[in-house]
Amino acid sequence: MKNILVISGVIMTLMASGCKETSDKSELIFPKGEKINNTNFTGTAWLNTLVEGDSSNQNSVGSVTFEAGVRTKWHSHPAGQIILALNGKGYYQEKGKSKIIIKKGDVITCKHDIPHWHGASSDSEFVQIAITGREKGPTLWLEEVRNEEYNAK
Amino acid sequence: MKNILVISGVIMTLMASGCKETSDKSELIFPKGEKINNTNFTGTAWLNTLVEGDSSNQNSVGSVTFEAGVRTKWHSHPAGQIILALNGKGYYQEKGKSKIIIKKGDVITCKHDIPHWHGASSDSEFVQIAITGREKGPTLWLEEVRNEEYNAK
Repeated sequence: MKNILVISGVIMTLMASGCKETSDKSELIFPKGEKINNTNFTGTAWLNTLVEGDSSNQNSVGSVTFEAGVRTKWHSHPAGQIILALNGKGYYQEKGKSKIIIKKGDVITCKHDIPHWHGASSDSEFVQIAITGREKGPTLWLEEVRNEEYNAK
Repeated sequence: MKNILVISGVIMTLMASGCKETSDKSELIFPKGEKINNTNFTGTAWLNTLVEGDSSNQNSVGSVTFEAGVRTKWHSHPAGQIILALNGKGYYQEKGKSKIIIKKGDVITCKHDIPHWHGASSDSEFVQIAITGREKGPTLWLEEVRNEEYNAK
């Protein structure tokens, strides 16, 4: 009986680790890309530029991976932005509204010139696709997100 | 000893089915949506409209799931289209070029007014995000993709 318990324990441990590996691999659709090296993000985030806007296509599309606790500064886009949440748990807030939690499968449409910020939650990384119209000029970067704003319930 | 083998067998069966379920669930980021009911697709495809273009956001964004063997007609977009392959194996072809195979993580940028078609491969379903500019008018639908075109190596 003891032997059975030991063998079952070993198999169940293998089972748990095997499942985890399958799940992690399948969730990474786009590689993380390059570490973002500017002051518009607080903490470590990664950008994989999937499409660069040009004269015949006005949208830029990028996959952004935020480590837990990491967020953008407040900013706005003169032609708006669409966010598709691919994995993990993130936060999104528009000026004058409450912070909301966004998860895999959620879609955000942010209208032009509305100050907002987004990032990972405090306890999980967050992966998003950002679709940003470039036809009316570049992103306008604003002030940092205060800890009280980031941590607000 | 016989008991140990039986118990191990049961646990390994549970393990295999458990892992499969985890994997399938994790790959479905956006629900399939509604069955497409028009003649622009050959066979069964599903559309989940994530964003509808409007006056303040010119892009429509949709998740499309093609069953194996299913494709669009030839068509073109007056403001172009971006395709993000999320899962499965698909085909994409622009007029005058060879058909290419697209898989999870591939990105296609189709310039404005270029006739093209896309769909699932013959042996696998295919899931894509389509980002379509609406600012210059609707999609122009053209002729069906001939079997010789679809099956070309």
